[in-house]
Amino acid sequence: MNTPFSYLSHLECSHCGQTYDAHQVQTFCPICQTPLLADYDWTAAAAHLKRDQFQARRKGMWRWHELLPVGDEAHIVTLGEGDTPILTLARLGDELGLQRLYLKDESLNPTGTFKARGLSAAVSRARELGVQRLTIPTAGNAGGALAAYAARAGIPAQVFMPADTPLANIEESRITGAEVTLVEGLISDAARLSVEAARQNGALDVSTFKEPYRMEGKKTMGYEIAEAFDWRLPDVIVYPAGGGMGLAAIWKAFGELRRLGWLEGDHLPRMVAVQAAGCAPVVAAFEKRAETCEFWQNAHTQASGLRVPKSFGDRLILQTLYESNGLALAVSDEEMMRAQQQLARCEGIFAAPEGAANVAALHHLIESNWLAADEQVLLLNTGTGLKYLR
Amino acid sequence: MNTPFSYLSHLECSHCGQTYDAHQVQTFCPICQTPLLADYDWTAAAAHLKRDQFQARRKGMWRWHELLPVGDEAHIVTLGEGDTPILTLARLGDELGLQRLYLKDESLNPTGTFKARGLSAAVSRARELGVQRLTIPTAGNAGGALAAYAARAGIPAQVFMPADTPLANIEESRITGAEVTLVEGLISDAARLSVEAARQNGALDVSTFKEPYRMEGKKTMGYEIAEAFDWRLPDVIVYPAGGGMGLAAIWKAFGELRRLGWLEGDHLPRMVAVQAAGCAPVVAAFEKRAETCEFWQNAHTQASGLRVPKSFGDRLILQTLYESNGLALAVSDEEMMRAQQQLARCEGIFAAPEGAANVAALHHLIESNWLAADEQVLLLNTGTGLKYLR
Repeated sequence: MNTPFSYLSHLECSHCGQTYDAHQVQTFCPICQTPLLADYDWTAAAAHLKRDQFQARRKGMWRWHELLPVGDEAHIVTLGEGDTPILTLARLGDELGLQRLYLKDESLNPTGTFKARGLSAAVSRARELGVQRLTIPTAGNAGGALAAYAARAGIPAQVFMPADTPLANIEESRITGAEVTLVEGLISDAARLSVEAARQNGALDVSTFKEPYRMEGKKTMGYEIAEAFDWRLPDVIVYPAGGGMGLAAIWKAFGELRRLGWLEGDHLPRMVAVQAAGCAPVVAAFEKRAETCEFWQNAHTQASGLRVPKSFGDRLILQTLYESNGLALAVSDEEMMRAQQQLARCEGIFAAPEGAANVAALHHLIESNWLAADEQVLLLNTGTGLKYLR
Repeated sequence: MNTPFSYLSHLECSHCGQTYDAHQVQTFCPICQTPLLADYDWTAAAAHLKRDQFQARRKGMWRWHELLPVGDEAHIVTLGEGDTPILTLARLGDELGLQRLYLKDESLNPTGTFKARGLSAAVSRARELGVQRLTIPTAGNAGGALAAYAARAGIPAQVFMPADTPLANIEESRITGAEVTLVEGLISDAARLSVEAARQNGALDVSTFKEPYRMEGKKTMGYEIAEAFDWRLPDVIVYPAGGGMGLAAIWKAFGELRRLGWLEGDHLPRMVAVQAAGCAPVVAAFEKRAETCEFWQNAHTQASGLRVPKSFGDRLILQTLYESNGLALAVSDEEMMRAQQQLARCEGIFAAPEGAANVAALHHLIESNWLAADEQVLLLNTGTGLKYLR
């Protein structure tokens, strides 16, 4: 029996449900101005795939290729992303009073952050669809990842980032050959320039949530989590939300796994979005039970990845929190720094400030009794602290 | 049938063959002042293990635990090291005129370098044997790795490194709680202080080749290479040699696999050691067909990991080159920088200068016709370029 390399069927607007042809280059829903989600032929996938067949494959996120958007293996642009470790944090758990604390360390991806997954998927699919040029606005790490994957694909790339982005992001983008523009302002200012450059140069703007395939790469975090926990999901997942795509993508993955009948039991995790006190649009919206976020004025935080005044996928992020009985909360930069040291000292993990923000959030969640001591809690460390050295 | 978690049997001097008890803390052979090598019960291992059983295990270097030195799983100190990707370098190969060029990207390890493997093994075994304190002299990355694994194990660590070691190495060691001493001088000067500190504090000095288990962690690179190439080894492996342990460890792994009968055919790779023109003791010895190296005076190179004036394992490195019909050659810092850019631009890989040195070496090996265009050539990128930013 010949099964397809991918069961991708179509794209669907995450708001109005309008469907779009996945075999053409698409961006977002022109009607609602909201993200498109990739959908698959679940009936065929469920009939032909077995959840336990993936473990024995060569490692990396592309071992889930049937549930990813690339139709021909030859188009995959990979640097070995995915299959990051899930570590037990026994010593930190002891300090905090949590008995079953885990961390998925996304810093072990190419370019040192979780952004590699999304850009591997987006660049691969762009290559498959014949895209000749790529642009991106970035808080830093996504730009570095786009530059790397575009170089590997041989596709020219333009990267727009705030002038005060960490040096590592600027250097990694430049050395891999991207055209880097430093912008006085925030990612929201960079976004305008990226759109304009895309229009002028006939490029595809792969801004977070503004094309459908970065999400697909990111969702493999969810598959890996499910597999690692033997298909019984943990009680709580804590995630630092800037653009917030990873949070929504993991939630999408869990929905897909449920649809495939691969999960043991009905239990889904409570999803927690952690933001910086100096830029917390999701927290503000969550506290009002709003459907979308307001643009956050004067955004500031050392965690450059969290300096996103308004995500294009705000609705999906908030939906994830509401549907999962989750939570959004903010921590200060000082709390992040202390948490970064605590995590490093207890577990030997030098996390990015964004990843450390999760540990800071734990302190609050424990104090408020939102977390019980025996719950399974999984933190996502989205990147390495090495990229933030001055 | 109950198979042991490890088939470790004893330690053996790499020079005189004297055996030592592996169940006590050992350093190096006190008679010859040369490294001890871990040996295993190969008869039992060959009888009970199958080479194809490892692929389906949870990923990471500890899936080879039967052939590693830790006797009880509970003692493993892991941050998710190992199982780094092997990438096809089609675009760089095209530029260079090589049809089958590959790179194993060790920068996707915890702490961003291949040092993680050795220190995971050494710290795990030290914990198993009850060691209370660790010290290390380092050119940089090994110190960062020791600090991380020692933190995770809850064992105090002292790190001695040259004062001009890249900032990333200093910071990662400090934040994970190691006691860092910056030394005016080179790793050879740091080594003297580390030995002294070990003596004073009853610590174990885990200097390269001066304890037997870092090598065991490193050898898993060899297992992974063999497995990824379907147990037919590539024609040439190119490796940047500072301490040179990885080179000798990969060679040890191939010998073990041959002994187990797991390799397809008798073909072994030619092993190439790449050094910096400003510090090339192995090259100098190789050219004289010497058995050991002379101490290199006034060592200097921006590739801090290659700034090792004399390795304690020099004899093993040179043996590897002679036995494999390999080669040692030096490249200038300028060549390294150009090669770093070429690799980044062609493949999106921002390698450490040490890893880039391999690409620089390729230019020489092609020019001199030492390499044929259709040979399978595997480069080891030992770390991420992110750690060398100023």
